[in-house]
Amino acid sequence: MKVERVHIQHITEEGEADTEDMVTMEFPVTISLNNRELVTLLCSPSDLDYLAVGFLLSEGLLQSKDEIKKITVDGQTGIVQVETRKGKELPHELLHKPLIASGGGRGASLDSIAATLGWAKIESQVVITPHEVFELVNEFQQHSQLFQATRGVHSAALCDTKNILVFNDDLGRHNAIDKIFGECFLKDIPTADRIVLTTGRVPSEQLIKVAKRKIPIMISLTVPTDLGVKLAADFGITLIGSVKGKKMNVYTNRWRVVTK
Amino acid sequence: MKVERVHIQHITEEGEADTEDMVTMEFPVTISLNNRELVTLLCSPSDLDYLAVGFLLSEGLLQSKDEIKKITVDGQTGIVQVETRKGKELPHELLHKPLIASGGGRGASLDSIAATLGWAKIESQVVITPHEVFELVNEFQQHSQLFQATRGVHSAALCDTKNILVFNDDLGRHNAIDKIFGECFLKDIPTADRIVLTTGRVPSEQLIKVAKRKIPIMISLTVPTDLGVKLAADFGITLIGSVKGKKMNVYTNRWRVVTK
Repeated sequence: MKVERVHIQHITEEGEADTEDMVTMEFPVTISLNNRELVTLLCSPSDLDYLAVGFLLSEGLLQSKDEIKKITVDGQTGIVQVETRKGKELPHELLHKPLIASGGGRGASLDSIAATLGWAKIESQVVITPHEVFELVNEFQQHSQLFQATRGVHSAALCDTKNILVFNDDLGRHNAIDKIFGECFLKDIPTADRIVLTTGRVPSEQLIKVAKRKIPIMISLTVPTDLGVKLAADFGITLIGSVKGKKMNVYTNRWRVVTK
Repeated sequence: MKVERVHIQHITEEGEADTEDMVTMEFPVTISLNNRELVTLLCSPSDLDYLAVGFLLSEGLLQSKDEIKKITVDGQTGIVQVETRKGKELPHELLHKPLIASGGGRGASLDSIAATLGWAKIESQVVITPHEVFELVNEFQQHSQLFQATRGVHSAALCDTKNILVFNDDLGRHNAIDKIFGECFLKDIPTADRIVLTTGRVPSEQLIKVAKRKIPIMISLTVPTDLGVKLAADFGITLIGSVKGKKMNVYTNRWRVVTK
């Protein structure tokens, strides 16, 4: 269960009523790699193995599934232990610093972030039609029962142009995306040539997570930041935002949206 | 300027158009205390002095204005240097760990967080009527031109029961609240007996920021988490959420909402 029932007083101009509301649960989870505590995340208490693995992937601390020796989730204390076959050297500076800090944060040109990181542009030739985008978003919105119950979470999904393949939600939009990629990693679900859907905004951190997994198309129900747009352009990602009903905005790499 | 104009392709079922959209700017800001870099925040590039001071306050690294010797904001590199009169011992563990981790994160009872932190319950006898809440929220929503232009930011405000006293916005809801408290701190605006308004959700971190400034009433346009509700109850804060039009939910300490 990721929701909790709380007593509230509902007040309108007409009067007041003692009633109940469903709120989303928030749980502190500490991720530990080879007995070293890396971070405590406040998250929705589900799929903590996916969350931990997705976080490690996003931070560049895992490359292949074979590296993982054991994952132990303690649902009581909220500690997730990940053990790898060989001990990991942890670059001290890596954690808790936005990845762009070394490029963008010190006044370097934002145009060169992909180059700075040594990442090749995403070349996937996948294309999508507006109709497919509208259908995917429609299915995506119906998926999130937790959002419908609480209005307190973000959802994320991995899709192809027709279907939602992996879905998750979390009170943090970063966590929701990490859970998706963690599940893909553990279940050997390929992410290249796929599409990521998010209910959340798209600042640089979200875009970087998606770029690392070589996702060519990112679709948000809401809006990106300027840096999100610049990075999407730079990384070769088609960024679609503000999808509502039968309307959408394409911010970058519009060639993947085929309108005929 | 906190917005940037980007070229987009707006697509509907009827057709497509090349047009422009306004997106919120995202800027990496590094906060440094006595020449030691503490954190890089991704934020909206405005009021960086308020943000830095508010962040230091929230982290417990500043107590009184007299401590501050100098604040230097470099808008180019995004580095904010805060110098204090005496060098600060920085508890290594403090930063980047949710405050509740020592209590909640290790399985201890959440009921005892206020006690664990050694905080007295907020005793302020301030009360508010539903009409005042609806009026404040109405004024608050009209305030955020940045939100109206971009839909990409959160707003926060410090109010009394009649008026908005301090207002700010940022792409991060934490940053928006830190900017508010930073401005209050630098301008000697008292926060006790005041009200905080936020467009954002209320997880534990938001609640703790507000509790630290002894705010008795917190009003959100959206919803809290279960932990936000528990902490509000424990700290003696009246938590009001889901305010929309002439409707609202009171989650905790409802005695401060006077309906007669």
